Amino acid sequence: MSTTDWSLPETDVFDQIRAALDDDADAVLATVIDVEGSAYRRPGAKMILRPDGSGAGSITAGCLEDEVRALAADVLADGDPRVETWDLTGEDDVWGLGVGCNGVITVLLEPLGDSYRPVVEARLGGDPIGVATAVGGEGGTSAGSPAFGARAYYDGEGFSGIAAGVFSDPDVLAELEPAMATLYEGGKAETVTVEMNGGTVEVFLEGVRPPPELVVFGSGPDVAPVVELAKLVDFRVTVVSFRGGKAGEERFPRADEVVSSAPADVDTACEWDEDTYAVVMTHNFLDDRIALEELLETPVPYIGLMGPHDRFEEMCEELAEDGRTLTEAERERIHTPIGLSLGGDSPYQIGYSIVAELLAVANDRTPQHLSRRAGPIHDRVEVGADPSESPE
Amino acid sequence: MSTTDWSLPETDVFDQIRAALDDDADAVLATVIDVEGSAYRRPGAKMILRPDGSGAGSITAGCLEDEVRALAADVLADGDPRVETWDLTGEDDVWGLGVGCNGVITVLLEPLGDSYRPVVEARLGGDPIGVATAVGGEGGTSAGSPAFGARAYYDGEGFSGIAAGVFSDPDVLAELEPAMATLYEGGKAETVTVEMNGGTVEVFLEGVRPPPELVVFGSGPDVAPVVELAKLVDFRVTVVSFRGGKAGEERFPRADEVVSSAPADVDTACEWDEDTYAVVMTHNFLDDRIALEELLETPVPYIGLMGPHDRFEEMCEELAEDGRTLTEAERERIHTPIGLSLGGDSPYQIGYSIVAELLAVANDRTPQHLSRRAGPIHDRVEVGADPSESPE
Repeated sequence: MSTTDWSLPETDVFDQIRAALDDDADAVLATVIDVEGSAYRRPGAKMILRPDGSGAGSITAGCLEDEVRALAADVLADGDPRVETWDLTGEDDVWGLGVGCNGVITVLLEPLGDSYRPVVEARLGGDPIGVATAVGGEGGTSAGSPAFGARAYYDGEGFSGIAAGVFSDPDVLAELEPAMATLYEGGKAETVTVEMNGGTVEVFLEGVRPPPELVVFGSGPDVAPVVELAKLVDFRVTVVSFRGGKAGEERFPRADEVVSSAPADVDTACEWDEDTYAVVMTHNFLDDRIALEELLETPVPYIGLMGPHDRFEEMCEELAEDGRTLTEAERERIHTPIGLSLGGDSPYQIGYSIVAELLAVANDRTPQHLSRRAGPIHDRVEVGADPSESPE
Repeated sequence: MSTTDWSLPETDVFDQIRAALDDDADAVLATVIDVEGSAYRRPGAKMILRPDGSGAGSITAGCLEDEVRALAADVLADGDPRVETWDLTGEDDVWGLGVGCNGVITVLLEPLGDSYRPVVEARLGGDPIGVATAVGGEGGTSAGSPAFGARAYYDGEGFSGIAAGVFSDPDVLAELEPAMATLYEGGKAETVTVEMNGGTVEVFLEGVRPPPELVVFGSGPDVAPVVELAKLVDFRVTVVSFRGGKAGEERFPRADEVVSSAPADVDTACEWDEDTYAVVMTHNFLDDRIALEELLETPVPYIGLMGPHDRFEEMCEELAEDGRTLTEAERERIHTPIGLSLGGDSPYQIGYSIVAELLAVANDRTPQHLSRRAGPIHDRVEVGADPSESPE
């Protein structure tokens, strides 16, 4: 497996999982289901491994990928899912002197099958989904038992697929639901332990969300670096051009969609929701102004506007003259000058600053040095059920 | 010219300029020498244009590239440099309603020739250089006169190449030197007006600096996204691997250099200076610790260390036990956890956060939303001589 496949954006990993399902190809899906201590990736990180040794995605910073690949052949031969835990903290030193990662990492390995299909279809179709997988416990849900690896799905309102294994027990579902709802909303994953028939069951709860949407208005050459960088960090990207002739998919081959529209038709050019981020960079004052007005009518939380602050103030004055005075809340949604203050003025450096701002806003972060920030690097999610400390 | 050529990192543009010089190929060099108001790119932005219409680099957000390309043929035919000014603010509206950029942009177009060779060789050889070009004035330095386009070079101590045109006048050099020194230090460019023989001469002063150096310690797959992103924003990148067998240039094809070293030999593995930034991500506690110790002996202003804060504190305790207590100033140079707080945990998202921090530190910026920052987007340089408001 090359580093290129290892570092693929999550959407591309899902594309490869879907391709394997479509082809009914033999493959193993490996998913991090629990992390104790610090690790490069969080629960929910996944990779697909094929019998020829190739694969896509990552579960650690390269520390476990070789071992997981070696196990994948066994999993395919057995046809059974299994859970493996690696303690990378070392025996004598809690910080992993001799090995790569620092933490106890638990991975679910399973022959890729149709039970993961609903997750893939939702993720690639633009819908969030929750998935609950039985990954341990006593008796009927322990490794090797028929219910091990059974799945139920969560759509924000309730579970489906509940006929299988532990999920046929209404008490189990009731206990899982608050945690599942939280993880579904946050797009996070966690293994929890629930009571069943006096024993315990470990269930991996994964909230899978589609990537955030980026809509870029513009058709100049400066759009391409923004698209390229946004795709690398896994936005779904639509380019909206008001100059049909100049745009076109061949100019923005990395965009998911290239739309030709009129400024006044912005509201119908895309689906607008709260996980959609708009960047306005037509370099045309009038087009920018109309796009801005239209975008304010949508629920998008972020409107980045290229150009200096004075230009925006001029725009506001014109709007006010037309009887359209922006509220404080509307101004809060508009980021101009666009981007984070990182310095540099080349096309990629400008694009970099824009996409850095998009990431911070989409992930609800205050841009600052992590070294100056209190708390863990990754946000932790507090879930209703007790997180299992050791899912094995 | 494709958007890919348009958005090339500056080093790649210089590579193409050198290739044209080496091949003695016909080409026009276009350089932004003055900007009034706001523009996508700053003075010093440049592109090379070839007779077949191809080119590399950018001078605006695509607003002037077509016009400049059209002029390039004339410039080649004439064999003479010329200066063109575009007022993109529009006649009736100061914000450029109908056109792309907002500003008055002045561009020097010249047949690419050996007078630019010293600049190219310095930039690509890793040395800063200043270059002064006569771009206007009265009498002997006006457009079309023999001294128009004449050059002198600045090495941080004084001018060379001073036999030509206006630069043979010691008073002119004395007047230019403070501004040149400031622009040389800051890597900025500006057109200034100086007195000569009772008249005035306009001189474009360009401080050209090599890209900042990034040295990444590590050989895991997570190194590749950092290298790729850092190259896009124009760092010169060296990967240092402590595991010779695993590294190698084929694994990091985008790196400028891949070095195999022992942790204790870090000080000799590269040239270390104040424009070099180190990222330590071996994922091995002992290797990281030794690299850290060695890097603290170099003048690098930034040492990014991957891993959680606790891991660094553990490292500090071990160092203290060995009698090596870090000073407050040393701790200030170490950024851990590495990166800006942008959220996300995929390999590219982690790499993005790291390179964003590198940009902010290299450009001396406090990471924050530009919309929340006072002052202009681009840092302005105060130079000794009066900047010319209209170099034409």
